[in-house]
Amino acid sequence: MDFPAELKRYAARVEQGIDQLLPPATTRPERLHTAMRYSLQAGGKRLRPVLVLATYHLFAGMKSEGGNSKPEIMDPLPAAVAIECLHTYSLIHDDLPCMDNDDLRRGRPTAHRQFDEATALLAGDALLTHAFVLLAESYATRPLLAHALIRELADAAGSRRLIGGQMEDLLAEKKDTATVAELEFIHLNKTAAMIEAALVMGGLAGGAGEGTLATLRRAGRHLGLAFQIIDDVLDATADSATLGKTAGKDAKAGKTTFVKLHGLETSRQLALQQSDAARAALMGLPGDPAFLLALIASMAARPS
Amino acid sequence: MDFPAELKRYAARVEQGIDQLLPPATTRPERLHTAMRYSLQAGGKRLRPVLVLATYHLFAGMKSEGGNSKPEIMDPLPAAVAIECLHTYSLIHDDLPCMDNDDLRRGRPTAHRQFDEATALLAGDALLTHAFVLLAESYATRPLLAHALIRELADAAGSRRLIGGQMEDLLAEKKDTATVAELEFIHLNKTAAMIEAALVMGGLAGGAGEGTLATLRRAGRHLGLAFQIIDDVLDATADSATLGKTAGKDAKAGKTTFVKLHGLETSRQLALQQSDAARAALMGLPGDPAFLLALIASMAARPS
Repeated sequence: MDFPAELKRYAARVEQGIDQLLPPATTRPERLHTAMRYSLQAGGKRLRPVLVLATYHLFAGMKSEGGNSKPEIMDPLPAAVAIECLHTYSLIHDDLPCMDNDDLRRGRPTAHRQFDEATALLAGDALLTHAFVLLAESYATRPLLAHALIRELADAAGSRRLIGGQMEDLLAEKKDTATVAELEFIHLNKTAAMIEAALVMGGLAGGAGEGTLATLRRAGRHLGLAFQIIDDVLDATADSATLGKTAGKDAKAGKTTFVKLHGLETSRQLALQQSDAARAALMGLPGDPAFLLALIASMAARPS
Repeated sequence: MDFPAELKRYAARVEQGIDQLLPPATTRPERLHTAMRYSLQAGGKRLRPVLVLATYHLFAGMKSEGGNSKPEIMDPLPAAVAIECLHTYSLIHDDLPCMDNDDLRRGRPTAHRQFDEATALLAGDALLTHAFVLLAESYATRPLLAHALIRELADAAGSRRLIGGQMEDLLAEKKDTATVAELEFIHLNKTAAMIEAALVMGGLAGGAGEGTLATLRRAGRHLGLAFQIIDDVLDATADSATLGKTAGKDAKAGKTTFVKLHGLETSRQLALQQSDAARAALMGLPGDPAFLLALIASMAARPS
């Protein structure tokens, strides 16, 4: 398997999907739809939607676990785009003045700097809502699948998970230092929830059974934690140009990170442990996990 | 039918449903869940959820249009609470400093005044997401119904409707005056979309067929427009104590309203026309619309 070529192919499908599945910028109100596209089409790694597609391809074309053909297999692209809409909304709101007050995102002005605060707020609201519109509309001929995908995404994005993690993150910033348990809650929910959802949604679209979905969820949790620890390490060691966002801002904001709590070396080891656990879970699945394993390896080597 | 008693009964069911169907305030993170409950439990008319329940009761217990019994009839309360979560999120975000910058809502400090801006932002995000969590979870045993309800609510709340109306409203405020067509777009989407959705969701939970759902949608649109015109009239004529929110703020903000475009008397006539159209649509439905008709009459007589 040619990992860079495969990754490029998946990412290109995501870009194409975003262009097709978002309302055109000329849709009324134009300013809102332009802002939605501005933030969603800013590039980025597309990690979550690529995970949806790659997980789907673990199962697509295979016999189902019960040995039958799988009529429930569906195009995973709308699910991939939906999770990227969700992720992008969380970035737009996270960048707002009342939150992180960030000027730069993926090397470009953040939405509220490019437009204004109200437009950024509404564009975020609209992307969050559009994730559910997309799932409900695109899978309308398969309402059971639509329901399962929506349930997964809504739970992962809700007040106990993604938004709960954001809230605890904000509260932790006001303290001198967060505890290990607090940091774990934040990362499990602010980061890992969406990675878990990406793998599970890929599995759902590919017709995976209950047991397989549980394994995917476990793999996603480990992968999400690995990803977050690596992010903390990079924030402490890389420069802004390499990251495409302001580097060292965690330390400057007095933010508790894995690096602050455990030091650089232990953080790197923790990231490795989590990657290994994700890898082990994936090895137990049907299908060829070569691409997903290579993706994990490339993450650990970021920025590449 | 004793309208005030019936209204009270419906509203009490909504309050009870909100208490049961929102995560307890002690759920981690407590500050987020406390803020969600603060805004959702601030009272208010509960117009949208009451419409869901009352529309459902047009159909519940009746034979279906095909003459069969209706196994798809479900408790409409989660749908009613979901639409109130959605409505409350839109109010919280609308009140934020970068939007209307309002200090008072339903006679109490707005969420960002009571907590802080970041908490209000996240509480709004969480209520929007919780609407979909609720529908996906509460109707999990009836995934077709869950899917139909989610599709209806997401479409009504999306970038072409509720949020689109908010955006056009903001843009209109920056101009000297909006045109009649612009004002219609704003009201059709900012206000009527959710009223339409309330009637359609009530119909879906009650097992209404396609033709009936189209009639409910039409009734909802007229009702929504009537409601908004009456709101404009009240803003121009009532005082803050009566309204429970800042009165006269539309005129002060230089906002274009029906009253500004058409004058007070014509606006009252327009409201009457829309109420009549809503009434006519409802009269064509199966079931006894007495409560809904009385609700429309009481709206025209607000504040009561």
